[in-house]
Amino acid sequence: MAESDVKLLGCWPQLPYVVRARIALNIKFVKYDYLEEIFGTKSDLLLKSNPIHKKIPVLIHGDNPICEFLIIVQYIDEFWSSDPRILPSDTYDRAIARFWGAFIDDKLLALIREVLELRTAKGQEQKAVVEKMIEALELLEDHYVKSSQGKAFFGGESIGYIDIALGCSLPWLRAIEKLTEMKMMNETKVPNLVAWAERFCKDPAVKDVIPDCEKLLELFKMFIAKEQLASN
Amino acid sequence: MAESDVKLLGCWPQLPYVVRARIALNIKFVKYDYLEEIFGTKSDLLLKSNPIHKKIPVLIHGDNPICEFLIIVQYIDEFWSSDPRILPSDTYDRAIARFWGAFIDDKLLALIREVLELRTAKGQEQKAVVEKMIEALELLEDHYVKSSQGKAFFGGESIGYIDIALGCSLPWLRAIEKLTEMKMMNETKVPNLVAWAERFCKDPAVKDVIPDCEKLLELFKMFIAKEQLASN
Repeated sequence: MAESDVKLLGCWPQLPYVVRARIALNIKFVKYDYLEEIFGTKSDLLLKSNPIHKKIPVLIHGDNPICEFLIIVQYIDEFWSSDPRILPSDTYDRAIARFWGAFIDDKLLALIREVLELRTAKGQEQKAVVEKMIEALELLEDHYVKSSQGKAFFGGESIGYIDIALGCSLPWLRAIEKLTEMKMMNETKVPNLVAWAERFCKDPAVKDVIPDCEKLLELFKMFIAKEQLASN
Repeated sequence: MAESDVKLLGCWPQLPYVVRARIALNIKFVKYDYLEEIFGTKSDLLLKSNPIHKKIPVLIHGDNPICEFLIIVQYIDEFWSSDPRILPSDTYDRAIARFWGAFIDDKLLALIREVLELRTAKGQEQKAVVEKMIEALELLEDHYVKSSQGKAFFGGESIGYIDIALGCSLPWLRAIEKLTEMKMMNETKVPNLVAWAERFCKDPAVKDVIPDCEKLLELFKMFIAKEQLASN
């Protein structure tokens, strides 16, 4: 299979899931065609490539579609297996990286979805969810301090699996901070994560593909306005 | 690290998650101590080993705890890496196995939980969930027929990742069939899965650790009686 025969199906707004795949491909210097789905529609290629979930992202390598974001990242790391490694080479460290990847998806991203679903609801409910997000971030701060031992990233001196999993939610966290006027990436509570986030967003594999939080915020506001219009 | 210094924290009722880890260890002929938690309580060892989720199963290898069922199975396959392999050796096949493992957890096991939560609710709601489970099983039947090409298991001639992920839910599916009087592992709709299930449950790595569906059914009925008593 030609290494260069790689396509990635994504869409705007670029969900954290799509950005993860793009960063993983950038880390490995894999050239790919980025095919953008039109928001709210599903192309024939998407339906054919992911008939079970009909969702982006889908990586298409030759004739082989690979679905589900964390599976895509693992596939990229295993197929283009030369350094830099995305998952740690040690078996136990790899299990730990997968654990935190699952934690980020099951807790943090689930809470992001919850805040967005509550966007027109009362502030009190939203506050409770944001507080849970802060708790999740504090656990991640704690893991980062323990595991990185002063290194730049969760994965050591270069971006790894947990960095990708968490880093792609940063623009969403920031947009929610602005929407709710509640600080989550707080320098008092998670000082190491705040510094890590800055390094992550400046990384050459990240900076051109991570979405702009202001654009996401505009999008949220547009959705809110649309809903308010519909409910009047 | 001594290969034999392996403990598995589980409990009765043996959730599909715990059984998965036991089967994976059996496949690799790894000797381990099975430590049973008392239902409804959490031992100090569990709290220390899985401080984030405080949930079984936890595999403790030497001093290293590994949490989350599918991560445990991957760890076992990667640490005891000689044959038989649990995950396929081909990179793309491995991504596909992970995809269906996630499908089984996110769809089928989520629906099992839903049926059990509805246990005292009206039959109509329960019926709708069971129908969704049948749809999920039909997709798995379809994948099995396409991928196994007449072989005994999803993983080929021996039990692999998808087999373990799906097989451990069989006793729960059967208990739900009896509870709801609705057939799911239906010979007309999923004939190949029915034959696969029989082979799976007879496998030497499986037969002594897979829970008895009658005992699970008794447990469900006990919970129902307890709830009805509490609501009267």
